[in-house]
Amino acid sequence: MKALSENACFGGKQGVYSHRSETCDCDMTFGMFLPEEANHGPVPVLWYLSGLTCTHENAMVKAGAQGWAAEQGLALVFPDTSPRGEGVADDAAYDMGQGAGFYVNATEKPWAAHYRMWDYIAEELPALITGNFAIDREAQAITGHSMGGHGALTLAMSLPGRFRSVSAFSPICNPSSSDWGRKQLGAYLGEDEARWAAHDATHLMREHGFDGPILLDTGTEDQFIDLLRPEALAEAINARRQQAVLRLQPGYDHSYFFVSSFMEDHINFHAEALYAG
Amino acid sequence: MKALSENACFGGKQGVYSHRSETCDCDMTFGMFLPEEANHGPVPVLWYLSGLTCTHENAMVKAGAQGWAAEQGLALVFPDTSPRGEGVADDAAYDMGQGAGFYVNATEKPWAAHYRMWDYIAEELPALITGNFAIDREAQAITGHSMGGHGALTLAMSLPGRFRSVSAFSPICNPSSSDWGRKQLGAYLGEDEARWAAHDATHLMREHGFDGPILLDTGTEDQFIDLLRPEALAEAINARRQQAVLRLQPGYDHSYFFVSSFMEDHINFHAEALYAG
Repeated sequence: MKALSENACFGGKQGVYSHRSETCDCDMTFGMFLPEEANHGPVPVLWYLSGLTCTHENAMVKAGAQGWAAEQGLALVFPDTSPRGEGVADDAAYDMGQGAGFYVNATEKPWAAHYRMWDYIAEELPALITGNFAIDREAQAITGHSMGGHGALTLAMSLPGRFRSVSAFSPICNPSSSDWGRKQLGAYLGEDEARWAAHDATHLMREHGFDGPILLDTGTEDQFIDLLRPEALAEAINARRQQAVLRLQPGYDHSYFFVSSFMEDHINFHAEALYAG
Repeated sequence: MKALSENACFGGKQGVYSHRSETCDCDMTFGMFLPEEANHGPVPVLWYLSGLTCTHENAMVKAGAQGWAAEQGLALVFPDTSPRGEGVADDAAYDMGQGAGFYVNATEKPWAAHYRMWDYIAEELPALITGNFAIDREAQAITGHSMGGHGALTLAMSLPGRFRSVSAFSPICNPSSSDWGRKQLGAYLGEDEARWAAHDATHLMREHGFDGPILLDTGTEDQFIDLLRPEALAEAINARRQQAVLRLQPGYDHSYFFVSSFMEDHINFHAEALYAG
């Protein structure tokens, strides 16, 4: 693992690191914020999964999360959204291939060789960060934006006990029924839709739910809201009687201006869950 | 109008009043909390509609609303849930007749003579309180519990401009599809289900929505949640992209212990809307 940069930040440190990923069979880069408390011992960690077209960098520089994380003594990890590099398959569309991994393990050509973002986020990167930084592996929470909200929700529901809390900003809620999902799941996982269900938050909510609190924010003026389908997940959460707070924020769109406006709430929400256990 | 009692309360006054109702053709009783500020001029008002079996009294003594209302300078009005008296039709069931008016104008026998709770709440009682108390008729908001949540939501959506904000505790969300609703709407309005739609919050959300903020709280352990159908309204709110906060509160049931636990949030939510305009 190699440090590409490390900057003092809100009394702690914002780093960017690259490493050879066995899972994705390429070099991968991630951002990591450590609060001052990490100098004295392991701290809880909040994962932030980004959306389409993003790298590890977008949320790290635009979401305004570090200040609130520093107040709460939380680490933040900002993974990339796909494998990258010259030998890695890609697509001309912004919503396929590099920058659009959708947090699945691809089984279909040409994607299967590198696109294993599920295992990367669920297995390889947790081992790497808990082995190299002062992170309490028993105190993890997860959030994300758009495609990253989809990733956060599906990982949280599929890995019981891993995350104490899950939140999302304008998440893709029901990709099996959306143009943000059908194309990608079909390409990465094949046309058998039964294999998509494990990557559809609405389906997972109906089948499993989440053993902890959920916070979801979506802007009423989100320009992609018809692709997000919050109504499907809202129905499933309510039908399940799942502990949750679902907010439709008036006037907000899909941008990082929206994400940053409610970041304090999300950090504090996760801190409450992380320090309760 | 006759004062049945008036008690000093959080620096203001909690009164109970009875009056002859033209609308319901019987005597009606309501509770009214006035904050200290009402001694100096008109104040905003929050309507609280109660649930099945309740009178004007239940919330007034158990919801814990007056302290928070006093902090915010809001009046509270607690109407009864049905016409009452010897000449008023009733039913042996707890969820029909007296104590179960469902906030509709009945058209069917034997109910039509007195059961006109919609007009009572929408027309007669507002005129009475704004004519007799220091209430700002331009600054009204509404909330309620269970059947009263149904009333709050349907009144708010059907009277555009009347209420700046609406909230509810464990509301009946979709009475047309619930045993808390089908029996009553059938009895009061007749078996033509097209006439029920105006009294179904989920239907009204699909058709009209609400021009202002909405806050809904329901307990995940609510023993009546299958009758409330929060999932139907949640789907409609999200599909409409309606400004709203929907919360499923872990471990809470249908009781006033639940209502009082979140009353501060609801009062503050309404105060923000009432003082913004």
